[in-house]
Amino acid sequence: MPKLTNHEEVKQSIAEAAWRVILEHGMEGASVRTIAKEADLSLGALRYYFKTQDELVAYSRELVYKRTAERMGRVFKLDMPPKDKIVQVLLNLLPSSEEKRLEVEARLVFKVYTRHKGEKFDAQQDSVYIAIKEVMSYLVLLNLLKKDADLHLETERLYCLMDGLALDAMIRPELLEANRMKRIIIYHLNSSCSEKFGNVGW
Amino acid sequence: MPKLTNHEEVKQSIAEAAWRVILEHGMEGASVRTIAKEADLSLGALRYYFKTQDELVAYSRELVYKRTAERMGRVFKLDMPPKDKIVQVLLNLLPSSEEKRLEVEARLVFKVYTRHKGEKFDAQQDSVYIAIKEVMSYLVLLNLLKKDADLHLETERLYCLMDGLALDAMIRPELLEANRMKRIIIYHLNSSCSEKFGNVGW
Repeated sequence: MPKLTNHEEVKQSIAEAAWRVILEHGMEGASVRTIAKEADLSLGALRYYFKTQDELVAYSRELVYKRTAERMGRVFKLDMPPKDKIVQVLLNLLPSSEEKRLEVEARLVFKVYTRHKGEKFDAQQDSVYIAIKEVMSYLVLLNLLKKDADLHLETERLYCLMDGLALDAMIRPELLEANRMKRIIIYHLNSSCSEKFGNVGW
Repeated sequence: MPKLTNHEEVKQSIAEAAWRVILEHGMEGASVRTIAKEADLSLGALRYYFKTQDELVAYSRELVYKRTAERMGRVFKLDMPPKDKIVQVLLNLLPSSEEKRLEVEARLVFKVYTRHKGEKFDAQQDSVYIAIKEVMSYLVLLNLLKKDADLHLETERLYCLMDGLALDAMIRPELLEANRMKRIIIYHLNSSCSEKFGNVGW
């Protein structure tokens, strides 16, 4: 492990180790001991950063949101035609690279886990929901949505579709490779918008 | 527990106990011991029916598929106008009653679990995918799909949307109650079809 002197950096590297353990073994295998081992730390050292497993899980989930929001910020700032950008934002919510894969899959597992923990899920805090709302605002701003579109239902539909796509990409990665996700996203945008997205960004 | 003399019935009641335990505690809490307790059986009695935990999990997952397929079969046979029936089929894939909730949520957890187990997921075996394909065939038969619709992409899109809706309904049940799921489904059908589904079946 590279030398990390910054407190926050160590916490992040522990959270990343937690993601890997959770994705490899599920929540059931994500004991503090296993995460410490994955992070190359002693149990005592890990406990210095996180007093309890709940604290570690909460931090790891928050870090997923934070990283997703940062990535979305970068994509929104890219210098490219609006339609390309919208496609890129949505593709960036799917596990199309190893770095994203960890984040995207960890987010889904955390989302399912909310149910087991009996916690309340607040979509407004979910960086994916926030990104979808921005995409919709962007479509409205550019006057791309169909005249009879219902903004609220379009938002909720796209949010659920992106979750389903992410889940499917996690379970059937071979289909992700085949550009299937991009085709579905463009097909969906074409069905919601008045102008064709065509083969934009392929 | 009512007296169960049939071997298969006991196996099913154990599998249902497994669903409840998995949804309550996640896969991490689904030890054979906990499931035996939930099923009101001794550990020895449970082991008579399932030699290993893997065997029990595999059977429980298969039972989800079987029950979903049976439910779909019943809905497809209902005597109602075609559009109403399509809406009913899709609504029946969501956790809108306690009986369905167990099945729908257990299916999602099993699907995510495939990834942790490193198993291959075959959508063709998934009763939800099979139901979606039947819905699409039905739409084609009735000539309801838009002229420029891509049958394959529509199928995959609806499959992912239904997974995302089920996940969301599991995490945010309060929104399910508000008929939001039905509105999204009808909105989606209207966007994919040449004829309006309107407020059918409300």
